[in-house]
Amino acid sequence: MDIKQFVLNKAKEAKEGARSIANASSSQKNAALVKMAEAIKKRAEELISENKKDIQYAEKKGLSKALIDRLTLNEKRINEMAQGLVEVAQLPDPVGEITRMWQRPNGMTVGRMRVPIGVIGIIYEARPNVTADATSLCLKAGNAVILRGGSEAINSNKAIVSILRDVAKAEGIHEGAITFIDMQEREAVMEMLKLEGIIDLIIPRGGEGLIRAVTENSRIPVLKHYKGVCHVFVDRDADLIMAEEICFNAKVQRPGTCNAMETMLVDEVIAEGFLPKMLKRFEGVGVEIRGCPKTRSIYPNIKEVSEDDFYNEYLDLILNVRVVKDMDEAIEHIAKYSSAHSDAIVTMNYDRAMRFLREVDSSAVFVNASTRLNDGFQFGLGAEIGISTDKIHARGPMGLEELTCTKFIVFGNGQLRE
Amino acid sequence: MDIKQFVLNKAKEAKEGARSIANASSSQKNAALVKMAEAIKKRAEELISENKKDIQYAEKKGLSKALIDRLTLNEKRINEMAQGLVEVAQLPDPVGEITRMWQRPNGMTVGRMRVPIGVIGIIYEARPNVTADATSLCLKAGNAVILRGGSEAINSNKAIVSILRDVAKAEGIHEGAITFIDMQEREAVMEMLKLEGIIDLIIPRGGEGLIRAVTENSRIPVLKHYKGVCHVFVDRDADLIMAEEICFNAKVQRPGTCNAMETMLVDEVIAEGFLPKMLKRFEGVGVEIRGCPKTRSIYPNIKEVSEDDFYNEYLDLILNVRVVKDMDEAIEHIAKYSSAHSDAIVTMNYDRAMRFLREVDSSAVFVNASTRLNDGFQFGLGAEIGISTDKIHARGPMGLEELTCTKFIVFGNGQLRE
Repeated sequence: MDIKQFVLNKAKEAKEGARSIANASSSQKNAALVKMAEAIKKRAEELISENKKDIQYAEKKGLSKALIDRLTLNEKRINEMAQGLVEVAQLPDPVGEITRMWQRPNGMTVGRMRVPIGVIGIIYEARPNVTADATSLCLKAGNAVILRGGSEAINSNKAIVSILRDVAKAEGIHEGAITFIDMQEREAVMEMLKLEGIIDLIIPRGGEGLIRAVTENSRIPVLKHYKGVCHVFVDRDADLIMAEEICFNAKVQRPGTCNAMETMLVDEVIAEGFLPKMLKRFEGVGVEIRGCPKTRSIYPNIKEVSEDDFYNEYLDLILNVRVVKDMDEAIEHIAKYSSAHSDAIVTMNYDRAMRFLREVDSSAVFVNASTRLNDGFQFGLGAEIGISTDKIHARGPMGLEELTCTKFIVFGNGQLRE
Repeated sequence: MDIKQFVLNKAKEAKEGARSIANASSSQKNAALVKMAEAIKKRAEELISENKKDIQYAEKKGLSKALIDRLTLNEKRINEMAQGLVEVAQLPDPVGEITRMWQRPNGMTVGRMRVPIGVIGIIYEARPNVTADATSLCLKAGNAVILRGGSEAINSNKAIVSILRDVAKAEGIHEGAITFIDMQEREAVMEMLKLEGIIDLIIPRGGEGLIRAVTENSRIPVLKHYKGVCHVFVDRDADLIMAEEICFNAKVQRPGTCNAMETMLVDEVIAEGFLPKMLKRFEGVGVEIRGCPKTRSIYPNIKEVSEDDFYNEYLDLILNVRVVKDMDEAIEHIAKYSSAHSDAIVTMNYDRAMRFLREVDSSAVFVNASTRLNDGFQFGLGAEIGISTDKIHARGPMGLEELTCTKFIVFGNGQLRE
């Protein structure tokens, strides 16, 4: 069978599955998720043995240790995967919520009801746990999922999907609700991206290259996460002890994440009092500092920051530092260089706090808190399928609600258009 | 200058405008809209004289009467355009609304604030009034607009834009907030569609051909309206007098619109009692009926409906009629043939009304009301930039809220990621 037809058939199966899961009750979905968790734990040996095939192949191909680590399933990771399914079962079901309802002058009542999106395509790389995580969130929100994982994890993914589908079927949910493209050709992804009208949304998860390729080729709407070039601005009226803790946390707590700080902006009024102690503390844990001329005049013997550096997502223990003359200059800097992911101000000044919140256009804007808190769990969404740097449909951490849309519902008693 | 550079420069101007309009207060935006309305009325002669150039050119090119009518500006239409601007000024401003706010265990307060999307590209055909209408809605929601109208209306559009920009500037809003691509090459549209990261959203307004071309070529998210293949299902427990009025209104009141009924589904239990009078009434106003075999056995001398007819958006006085054995068959029919735009049930049965509402997946689902009511004004949104048949971001009538997105805002007092 040719690739195009193969992918089309899979997508049609997913679409059938979507109608089934869309009409499943919360109890039915929750019971299925809990049983999936049990089945994953019960069939752990099978998973580990399939996973070994992937690891052996990766070793033969000489793939990096980091990649092989991401690929590896062991008992602990399998238990975490199962636990994730149980946690999603425990979350409230967004489907069917009526977000607003109002009456019109002609007597009809109009409301907006939250409903599933339909078929969601997930395109991802080597982590097999994404298979279970993404599936559980999509199913809970009443959607079918069509999965296309990286070829490195093909055996592991097939094994996970087979377990999930077995349970779905036993629980009266059409298996198409969990559809896996078990074809490794890159063309299969390209064919998926053309199936507008069958697949409703694509969520790519992985590196920037994958995400750009998906966005450029997709006719289907894409929710994506590019990079996080995040800022903390230390205002002249900051509590400097708080500022130091926030900046340190934002840079150092986990530098490889998208919401870690890449550039620290410091008001010139407090720069001399703040920078020496702060930068020494950073250097003490191995952070490489790249400073603007003013920073270097206060704290010599550091590299000079370049224009390009300001656009960079280091994901590493490297920090740009710039002294600005006031908040306006900080906001200008952020408007120019930020990836609009997470930006923070540290200040005790009410007016500047409110202006910063309003004028900085990022997925999350913080007053007196670390950018590292931009996260679905930290914000209380209960789950997270990613952080969107888009502005359309979802922005910032995406939980179950972001995997739904709304439809208008109308209760009438004979209303006509005049 | 080459086309690519030309369009890029325009988009950059719009992006500058976006920052200016995003931070404008409601009063400033409203004052500008009201003054734009005044200026349009004051400079009506100039508009009409520029419009004459377009009409003369259209006549020379032998374009259709219908198109020339859509193109024509006269005093009445100019007054309506101005009135539209005033009405948008009177609507509540969606920007800055905090849709929800909650506290986290670590003491930080998290909220979602409604903010402008940024730069919205409008690609449209011959109607010059779209220039003012779309601009007013985008500006009110704090967005810059980048307009690309049909070449038939180039002189009219330029004249309208020039008036709007003059007022914007006088009111302290960066002119880039209203940017017009005054270049007629088709390539200019293609270049626009590549400017991901500068233009945030594309809304095409026009025929299916335009919309498909935009969707297939855009790297920027697109909100679109394909077709409306709408259904009314007359259930066995319908009030047959109400059913007749609703079906008649849905088909006849304005058959050329996307929310007019194309197929009437009738429960077989009441088909013999309902169809003869209903179909006679339709024929009385010139509706061509295409019936299924059962319909034809009850009401002979009508054409037989084909499978293809069920997919058709007639936008005309033609109606498919199918007798179904129960609501399940009606829902199956709608799932297969509907464009998921507007679908209605007429019934007095509580259980079936609720099931139909839940199980039919369309942008608006009606109980006992005409599909013709699927409209932003009828629903009370106060305005409408179109009806989205997409599921991502906006579904159904799009008002001002749909021209915004949200960002997370966080009030902390030193919270860190543990």
